[in-house]
Amino acid sequence: MTVVFSLHPRLVADTVFVADWALSRVVAMNDARYPWLILIPRRDGATEIFDLSAEDRRTMIEEIARASDGLKSLTAAAKINVGALGNLVPQLHVHIVARNPGDAAWPGPVWGQGSAQPYEQGALDAFVRQLVNAL
Amino acid sequence: MTVVFSLHPRLVADTVFVADWALSRVVAMNDARYPWLILIPRRDGATEIFDLSAEDRRTMIEEIARASDGLKSLTAAAKINVGALGNLVPQLHVHIVARNPGDAAWPGPVWGQGSAQPYEQGALDAFVRQLVNAL
Repeated sequence: MTVVFSLHPRLVADTVFVADWALSRVVAMNDARYPWLILIPRRDGATEIFDLSAEDRRTMIEEIARASDGLKSLTAAAKINVGALGNLVPQLHVHIVARNPGDAAWPGPVWGQGSAQPYEQGALDAFVRQLVNAL
Repeated sequence: MTVVFSLHPRLVADTVFVADWALSRVVAMNDARYPWLILIPRRDGATEIFDLSAEDRRTMIEEIARASDGLKSLTAAAKINVGALGNLVPQLHVHIVARNPGDAAWPGPVWGQGSAQPYEQGALDAFVRQLVNAL
């Protein structure tokens, strides 16, 4: 059996690769306004959490907890925001965003708040290295 | 041991009771713009998903899937949005929102988008009865 998995072009364009975990590809949003991860279960055709099997859901929430805990520790953020929306990109993906009072969207959600501010290349490389160590 | 569980006053003010599941209290937002549930794990002090035990997390994601699937079936929504933000209300709570193209915030998120539009009392009662049957 060939395992088919492909990322939606929008996710490819907006993110950089961090790691492949048991279920999810972990990527970082190239947006310097917020430390921001996205977990994409490697299951083609899934758009809702209930499209995953119960076993995959169990892995999913453990990966959400791992990413949230790691990102909070790395960034000392006040709050982690977790979201699975998919209104624009139907492929199931879970946002994990480090939030702080005074950030560009606080206390509102980050989604749909203006354009991303790409990192400088060196800063993006450094952020990904930190993530690989922290998660 | 006395189990202590209390809802944040903001959650009390904005919602109506639907059900108590194994882990979560299920409430409905009194906002006629979107069919909208909130799951609140009955664990005082939890603010992040990683504050729950692994066992509770497993229950949490099953309850998220159950609420999402039931709400999608009931409303025939195009997409379910799931979010755990907590920037304003720190008590851990998970939003499950039925979304459709053309709704008041589409394709953006529902959080922070103007004031809730309370249901007429009869419509609210009917919605809760439908939820109790559908979930």
